[in-house]
Amino acid sequence: MSDPLSSILESAVPEDETRESLIRSVIPLLLGGIAEVSKALRESHRVSAVGTANSFGDNQLNVDVEAEKLLRKAISRCPFIASASSEEDPVERPVKPTTGQYCVVFDPLDGSSIISANWTVGTIVSIWDGPSALGQVPAQRQVAAILGVYGPRTTAIVAVRIPGTTGRSCCFEVALDDKGWMVKWRVTRPNLTLSPSSSYFSPANLRAASQDPRYMSLVTSYISRQYTLRYAGGLVPDVVHMLVQGQGVYLSPVDQNQDSSKAKLRRLYELCPLALVVECAGGSAIDPSNGQRILERVVQSCDERGGIVLGSTSEAREAVGVLSRS
Amino acid sequence: MSDPLSSILESAVPEDETRESLIRSVIPLLLGGIAEVSKALRESHRVSAVGTANSFGDNQLNVDVEAEKLLRKAISRCPFIASASSEEDPVERPVKPTTGQYCVVFDPLDGSSIISANWTVGTIVSIWDGPSALGQVPAQRQVAAILGVYGPRTTAIVAVRIPGTTGRSCCFEVALDDKGWMVKWRVTRPNLTLSPSSSYFSPANLRAASQDPRYMSLVTSYISRQYTLRYAGGLVPDVVHMLVQGQGVYLSPVDQNQDSSKAKLRRLYELCPLALVVECAGGSAIDPSNGQRILERVVQSCDERGGIVLGSTSEAREAVGVLSRS
Repeated sequence: MSDPLSSILESAVPEDETRESLIRSVIPLLLGGIAEVSKALRESHRVSAVGTANSFGDNQLNVDVEAEKLLRKAISRCPFIASASSEEDPVERPVKPTTGQYCVVFDPLDGSSIISANWTVGTIVSIWDGPSALGQVPAQRQVAAILGVYGPRTTAIVAVRIPGTTGRSCCFEVALDDKGWMVKWRVTRPNLTLSPSSSYFSPANLRAASQDPRYMSLVTSYISRQYTLRYAGGLVPDVVHMLVQGQGVYLSPVDQNQDSSKAKLRRLYELCPLALVVECAGGSAIDPSNGQRILERVVQSCDERGGIVLGSTSEAREAVGVLSRS
Repeated sequence: MSDPLSSILESAVPEDETRESLIRSVIPLLLGGIAEVSKALRESHRVSAVGTANSFGDNQLNVDVEAEKLLRKAISRCPFIASASSEEDPVERPVKPTTGQYCVVFDPLDGSSIISANWTVGTIVSIWDGPSALGQVPAQRQVAAILGVYGPRTTAIVAVRIPGTTGRSCCFEVALDDKGWMVKWRVTRPNLTLSPSSSYFSPANLRAASQDPRYMSLVTSYISRQYTLRYAGGLVPDVVHMLVQGQGVYLSPVDQNQDSSKAKLRRLYELCPLALVVECAGGSAIDPSNGQRILERVVQSCDERGGIVLGSTSEAREAVGVLSRS
């Protein structure tokens, strides 16, 4: 097989015909959906009009809805997807035909707060074995994740890991070309790897630091140690920056007692896919409230939320150590 | 006159035929150059290959050089530009024909450190009266600035202020459509205005805070007061976020005694254009080392650098107050 996308994916899946559908249909069709969203965003100057209202009005919802529609269309073209749910419509619904073996969950357009300023935003997709992602252990059933990145150009990060097989996990970047009808992709970074330590930090949910002296001391310690700050405030750009730099730590601790710093990130649509991407790049994704690996906890409902620390392994562990100090 | 770009520009310039060239030729041609850069970036998947080297190698230079070339081409099409210089080629050179009345200075592609992660980057252009920007008081001679914004879509911020005239200053956003040969624009935000106070902050050159307790205390005070952090690490996206939100403060104090936190921003290519944009939106741009308005200081050489605090007026003043405490 000649095309680089297929060959990189083949190395990650076992020699098993049942996985052919994943690498030849599910992933390529979802990448095609992402290319369509990119094209829509580029032409959607209505998005600009939204920011003037300085809140998430109807127009902005239109962009989300448009992305949702384009991804649903891509999903409907794939006979191997049994069900799908999204952050815009958080109910697992069967996809016809219902003979598929995968469940797809997605956040069609992540980064509502920064899209009006024309900052890079993204799509988060993940693929689960079986007809439902709920009640399953993510580490055992979530087999792939894709981040669509809409910036000066269109790129996507793909991560695949088939549990309990001989295939090795992979995490790579493709460039998408949305000209014409055929979506073409090129593998631009075949092996994204996070080194254990880092000198970059991304402190999300910083309001929590106003109440939690542990988070505040962690942030000031990064500054004192001259770490470089990068914080777009969009999960996709922030994690992609880390992957491309090969280092970084992203912090989103939560405080359920404070309204202003409660958990906002959804486990199903955001935490699990990003945790898979980061683990496939050799990093760690940890729940700062209990030190557990994000992918070990079963997701019980589409709306479950939580905190996360992810990135370079030793950095993530150090951060959780500080954040969970009693 | 029907097109909204011209009518908005007309309100900013005096009824004076000598300014016709600015609004009908110089600004539209530069916007056209920005649309060309956008198109080149979108197709330039070579940019992707650079990040893997994790340093600014030849390929990345190629992108800068390509942007430089496209903007020089746009400039050469305009008979009203007498001279031009850029961050890539920081020498004022005459443009043929040399009958023009304006000097153009530009940074073709600002944000080298984030372009490999596919984050939003930008172009910074400013237009000065007369054949040279050097040895002039910016507040009196810099008449317009344009920020090109390359993100999920292509936008530009335009600011115009003609000193000593009845024209009022303006700051607005246009959406650029680079399909086909004709560049089209639409005014998407006709009046960008910064409110005096803010709840957003962007702390650049944060390494300075590791040495300067005043900067550290300013940052922790924003966190304690639950300001929202947004920091892309690119001047254009950071300032555009502020303009679109209608509030914010951007801090880049410098410490000339510390190698790691020395001034990096160039007065001519970065500080002066951004100061004009922010002032036209009703904000302030102040040199934190002496509390002076950025636009009052003459630029003596193309390579001069300095610190800056800009954004919502009362926020910028408060920040400079803290940073200059003795």
